[in-house]
Amino acid sequence: MLQPPPARPGMREDEVDTPALLIDLDAFEYNLDRMAALLAPTGAKLRAHAKTHKSTVIAHLQIARGAVGQCVQKVAEAEALAWGGVPDILVSNEIVGASKLARLAALARIAKVAVCADDALQVAAIEAAAADAGVRLPVLVEIDVGAGRCGIAAGPDAVDLAKRIAASRHLVFGGLQAYHGSAQHKRTVAERRAAIQGAVEASRRTVEQLRQQGLECPIVGGAGTGTFEIESVSGVYTEMQAGSYVFMDADYARNLDGAGAPIGTFRHALFVLATVMSVPLKHVAVLDAGHKAVAVDSGLPVVWQRPDIRYVGASDEHGKLEVAPETTAPKLGEKLRLVPGHCDPTVDRYDWYVGVRGGRVECLWPVSARGGMH
Amino acid sequence: MLQPPPARPGMREDEVDTPALLIDLDAFEYNLDRMAALLAPTGAKLRAHAKTHKSTVIAHLQIARGAVGQCVQKVAEAEALAWGGVPDILVSNEIVGASKLARLAALARIAKVAVCADDALQVAAIEAAAADAGVRLPVLVEIDVGAGRCGIAAGPDAVDLAKRIAASRHLVFGGLQAYHGSAQHKRTVAERRAAIQGAVEASRRTVEQLRQQGLECPIVGGAGTGTFEIESVSGVYTEMQAGSYVFMDADYARNLDGAGAPIGTFRHALFVLATVMSVPLKHVAVLDAGHKAVAVDSGLPVVWQRPDIRYVGASDEHGKLEVAPETTAPKLGEKLRLVPGHCDPTVDRYDWYVGVRGGRVECLWPVSARGGMH
Repeated sequence: MLQPPPARPGMREDEVDTPALLIDLDAFEYNLDRMAALLAPTGAKLRAHAKTHKSTVIAHLQIARGAVGQCVQKVAEAEALAWGGVPDILVSNEIVGASKLARLAALARIAKVAVCADDALQVAAIEAAAADAGVRLPVLVEIDVGAGRCGIAAGPDAVDLAKRIAASRHLVFGGLQAYHGSAQHKRTVAERRAAIQGAVEASRRTVEQLRQQGLECPIVGGAGTGTFEIESVSGVYTEMQAGSYVFMDADYARNLDGAGAPIGTFRHALFVLATVMSVPLKHVAVLDAGHKAVAVDSGLPVVWQRPDIRYVGASDEHGKLEVAPETTAPKLGEKLRLVPGHCDPTVDRYDWYVGVRGGRVECLWPVSARGGMH
Repeated sequence: MLQPPPARPGMREDEVDTPALLIDLDAFEYNLDRMAALLAPTGAKLRAHAKTHKSTVIAHLQIARGAVGQCVQKVAEAEALAWGGVPDILVSNEIVGASKLARLAALARIAKVAVCADDALQVAAIEAAAADAGVRLPVLVEIDVGAGRCGIAAGPDAVDLAKRIAASRHLVFGGLQAYHGSAQHKRTVAERRAAIQGAVEASRRTVEQLRQQGLECPIVGGAGTGTFEIESVSGVYTEMQAGSYVFMDADYARNLDGAGAPIGTFRHALFVLATVMSVPLKHVAVLDAGHKAVAVDSGLPVVWQRPDIRYVGASDEHGKLEVAPETTAPKLGEKLRLVPGHCDPTVDRYDWYVGVRGGRVECLWPVSARGGMH
């Protein structure tokens, strides 16, 4: 069941039922514009990652500002976007299983849909699905550029797999997927540069070896919010797959800039609004937002603009706050904004975004691909 | 949008699309029966906690085996259950906010609905909502019995709050809520006994002080899967609020029995079924189940009946496996069952349960209150 929304347009923010997923629309639009401005001089394009927002509304706003399309991780996300009119979708991930591939191939009739592979068995399965559906699917070869997750070895192995794809009359060689996930959250610029330098070199070498075999890469995709400023000027990467930049989370905000200060490229635009539901002791308060309301896999949430209040522990439906001795504890019923430690899995818990501006609810947007598991 | 189910009845388990939330029906029914058998001689009743399962189907199965009703933590959960015919619901939590209380009071026309309070301001707000709706709401006083979360102090403070409730013509004093959350996962029997001994003493003292004021406690509720065998024979607690027992998770399975062995009271009945989507190295495989598919707040999931394979890291949509050197890595496309570290927030990520028995899908049940945030 889709849950009823926690707000109505026109309400004051403090009237929104909690926990609720807020977008600060001013900060959000700033982030959209900022990314477009940062990429404009680089020659690299944005293919924003929809695994962060899972929203057709936000996808279209990104495309309106120059994004070539969207990335997704799952067929269910590709379906939600294609059904919502997004015309160009890359599944930046391997898809394994005949039923999923049949659904993906079916989508190719209403949108441009590409997918990744790192194994010849996957390529054969994608080929079979494309043949059955009577479509031709672009397939990118995913190479491991240092993250040590999915991906075939860069160089000759990747070239062999690309040749296998290009030789199929049901497939099109789509290029390289070269995302370095673990580089995104390295804290210093030097660490991020070192990691991405390796990714760029592996990608460049593979692109050149492919060219020697007569294979061009329409897409060399990768990069995230933590590193896109490096890949975008590499001359190798063509598409930036940043997702979190639209919202920012507490963990990304712990990345540092060249001067060692917290990086300020984007603004916090996503919040979990929560209510103080109990004040059992003078300097302890309990919020109605715990594990089911906010992801803690990248650290506990941070109370927005209240350095005197720390979120110190979560249980399923409760968040415990410690209030500094010199300050007044929040009152029963008071609402506080939390900055999630990690945006993507926080968003995936909610059915609705509540867009706020100037203290008022301006819009409700569904989290269209929420729970899109398979 | 409700996501389409990942399976159809009659399918083989290995045909289920992944990630999917499986119930092993044999183990699940064993757990239901075992709890009923354990409580039968104690005099305490089960009021199973629906925050674990969020399912009207499972609620009715528990009630059919003797549960007096269900606990929930949120108004949205109470709505899902009441709309699905569950007749007796306790919100074992504080509810703050006029719109939530109005919804709760409205439910009192179709089900018996009680709620907790730990503050006179909450009582006044519940009273106003009950008066507006023209209903009379039972309110339990939540006391802090050692968990240090919500709850008023046991003893005189609790008695004062109970008198405030009993004095209202729109409310009924419903008894005491005396749950000791942090005791549930203490690893040794001695630690759990020590914690619950304090909870029992605080509850007994408060019950006696209430009785001296002419107030009887229809309910003294608390206990969870980790400790209900202690509270149920205390002579004070009347209702056991265990939830996780129906499924068990990897974290509860780390509790030890009196002999220091892993406690074997209940069986693992809940699994996340996942597919091997990449085998990038000889002893590394990647599953399609990461943070969005399984909660990691109480530890990483455990690969079921495969001690040779460890789930070593999660990202949003990937789970990395390390395979012991002496064993063969799982094949691309192979499906593995994961035991979640923590059931409750794992369940809340899914729209559907897939019930399996003897390797076949027997049923699909919706997670009725999934995402019930507010």
